[in-house]
Amino acid sequence: MEQNKDIFQTLQPLQILDKTYERPPINKNFLRLYGHHLCPYVEKARLALLAKNLAYQDVQVNLERRAKWHYLLNEGFLPILETPQGNTILESRIIMDYAEEAFPKEGVKLYSSDPEEKAYQQMIMKFFDDVASAMFEVVLSHGTSKAGAQKLHKVFSRLEALLKQSSTQFFNSQDKYTMVDIFGLPHVSRIFYLKDSALNFLYEEEKIEEKYPKLRQWVYHMRAQPEICQEKGGVIIIKAFQLWTEELITLPKGTKPPLRIPMKL
Amino acid sequence: MEQNKDIFQTLQPLQILDKTYERPPINKNFLRLYGHHLCPYVEKARLALLAKNLAYQDVQVNLERRAKWHYLLNEGFLPILETPQGNTILESRIIMDYAEEAFPKEGVKLYSSDPEEKAYQQMIMKFFDDVASAMFEVVLSHGTSKAGAQKLHKVFSRLEALLKQSSTQFFNSQDKYTMVDIFGLPHVSRIFYLKDSALNFLYEEEKIEEKYPKLRQWVYHMRAQPEICQEKGGVIIIKAFQLWTEELITLPKGTKPPLRIPMKL
Repeated sequence: MEQNKDIFQTLQPLQILDKTYERPPINKNFLRLYGHHLCPYVEKARLALLAKNLAYQDVQVNLERRAKWHYLLNEGFLPILETPQGNTILESRIIMDYAEEAFPKEGVKLYSSDPEEKAYQQMIMKFFDDVASAMFEVVLSHGTSKAGAQKLHKVFSRLEALLKQSSTQFFNSQDKYTMVDIFGLPHVSRIFYLKDSALNFLYEEEKIEEKYPKLRQWVYHMRAQPEICQEKGGVIIIKAFQLWTEELITLPKGTKPPLRIPMKL
Repeated sequence: MEQNKDIFQTLQPLQILDKTYERPPINKNFLRLYGHHLCPYVEKARLALLAKNLAYQDVQVNLERRAKWHYLLNEGFLPILETPQGNTILESRIIMDYAEEAFPKEGVKLYSSDPEEKAYQQMIMKFFDDVASAMFEVVLSHGTSKAGAQKLHKVFSRLEALLKQSSTQFFNSQDKYTMVDIFGLPHVSRIFYLKDSALNFLYEEEKIEEKYPKLRQWVYHMRAQPEICQEKGGVIIIKAFQLWTEELITLPKGTKPPLRIPMKL
């Protein structure tokens, strides 16, 4: 990279544009998160760092031109969290749990102290895995996959019911969002970001707003949380996702647009 | 059930033989684990309870004749842990974490207190998911799936290398087994149980012993651990698995033998 060496020790964002880019030297001052703005799993990890009020250096990786060191480190997957000691933590869920456990007193408390309640939180988190797979099925088929839509409505109905039972605006009747909410937000929100996107017709046809008013309210409420809306990345994600859908509908069904950087925004 | 009502409050094992069996009344004295001896996910949950020295009532469920209440409770899946208060905890991994967190001072300490070390433990645990899927692919194809065998050797080689790096007989250089070891044992051990089974030819052809001496030693060492070998279920599992392979090879490739109870042993 042609950048000044000092940049690797700061909070200034980096970009790895090409497979010829070497792995940046370790940031000895701050955590570093390797990610991509379009990836919901990266977003989860970032939300955990934001919830815990942890400063981190953001590195955006061109997933179309991954470097060899990236394959060796994590088979080319994201997110990757790098500690100031140079250790790497892989997998979004493991990064999220690490943030909570390594920094128990910082920011928002993400898990209940009661083990049974925590087990219940984790049981709800499992539901969101179904949103993730249904979302890709529905969106990549441009809304023509009936099975995908059915799966999406099944899990959305379950989540809507859980929010109705909650005595607060968050899952699990908590006064403040928890791991459940930040774990689920990236997947659920993408369906609501379809509004006014190139796939708006899908949003209308499936009657997303009409059927899931609580979930919609939750998405907006979550995005308005101080730690989360501080994130400049939030606006970038919505914009990037909507541009992604514009590219998506020009491609054959089942095909994903490339995950390149820099993104046109 | 025709049994004496008192049995529901004891440690005496129960069997749910048929869909007409009602859900047993809550055991107000002990934890209760609904499972099936042939299921590796149930075995993981049981190993966590044994490691934590927790008494529990074992309930074996006929998975060929599941009751409606079982579908309503957990879509017919196992394991299910029921607390003396009547709450249910679903999913093997969540049950394992619950056992560790609800009973931190009992039995074996399953996770490192260092968050980074714990994250590393969880990263190794992810590898075992590949063993689970490869095992079924290899075994159900009666050893004819080259892709399955390749996947199995890839992950077994990685695990063998991790054990070689370890300064102890357990993963992760720990003096005593941890969550990593009990999480992985059910999947890895089934490959070693193929020895002298109806699929012994597969065990020989794939040179399992020759290629993975450390893993083999680890399986035997784990089974000899006092908390784990106390388990009468251990012998049942090996016997049941080997009988399952005898039935398996009489069926068309890709077909699983039924998970009924009582099992012929």
